[in-house]
Amino acid sequence: MSLPLPEDVIGFLRRPQPAVIGWSGQGGRPYTVATWYDWDDGEILINMDATRKRRAWLDVGAPVTLTVLDAQDWYRHVSLYGEVARTRDDVALADIDRLAHRYTGRPHRNRTAARISAWMKITSWHGWVDAGPWPSG
Amino acid sequence: MSLPLPEDVIGFLRRPQPAVIGWSGQGGRPYTVATWYDWDDGEILINMDATRKRRAWLDVGAPVTLTVLDAQDWYRHVSLYGEVARTRDDVALADIDRLAHRYTGRPHRNRTAARISAWMKITSWHGWVDAGPWPSG
Repeated sequence: MSLPLPEDVIGFLRRPQPAVIGWSGQGGRPYTVATWYDWDDGEILINMDATRKRRAWLDVGAPVTLTVLDAQDWYRHVSLYGEVARTRDDVALADIDRLAHRYTGRPHRNRTAARISAWMKITSWHGWVDAGPWPSG
Repeated sequence: MSLPLPEDVIGFLRRPQPAVIGWSGQGGRPYTVATWYDWDDGEILINMDATRKRRAWLDVGAPVTLTVLDAQDWYRHVSLYGEVARTRDDVALADIDRLAHRYTGRPHRNRTAARISAWMKITSWHGWVDAGPWPSG
């Protein structure tokens, strides 16, 4: 089960914030890239192009991390640590459309490239507000 | 030697952008956190509290990654991959002051906590502008 988060952190994550996902690849090297995400009933939904190399490293059980910045003031940020709980072929593009609507107000533009969804189970987190720890952390 | 980057990427990195650093910790688990950085003659300067656990994982030779978002439009972003080339005790707080001035216009507030600087050598990068690759990438 995902770690329960404080309500103010959930409220922060529900907003369409800039985020960076991190994972470990070949030889344990870290990788990071900007990503869309959504809060999904206690887990974090992400979605990726099925042909991306990262897909192999973001399989079920893989450790994964997400740092979410406040779009208005990036000195507020929350980092989530956990693992990939499950993945699903996004055959109808429903999940990427959900993310595209959330961030752009429109459906995803590319209707041909295959997509895969992954849900991140959260096992720990920390947050910062300006120079101090997130109050409810 | 650090990988030479295109001039437009360097110009992007020279601005005080929001950034997220990634590294591999215990058991190869990925970690990410928001960070200040500066472009320093072909390398990336970061600075950390000397007591942070991450310090052990960000030693010379450790693989490290930095995703830099455009503060005005985070669909422009650049991810840098590389390793820690060298570290230095920031005894006079000169490096953290450089970063604090860059991001806040003021010296670093905490004058008592020991700080360590690290320089990241860049070995590869990729960038995105909206939905496509960075033009000079």
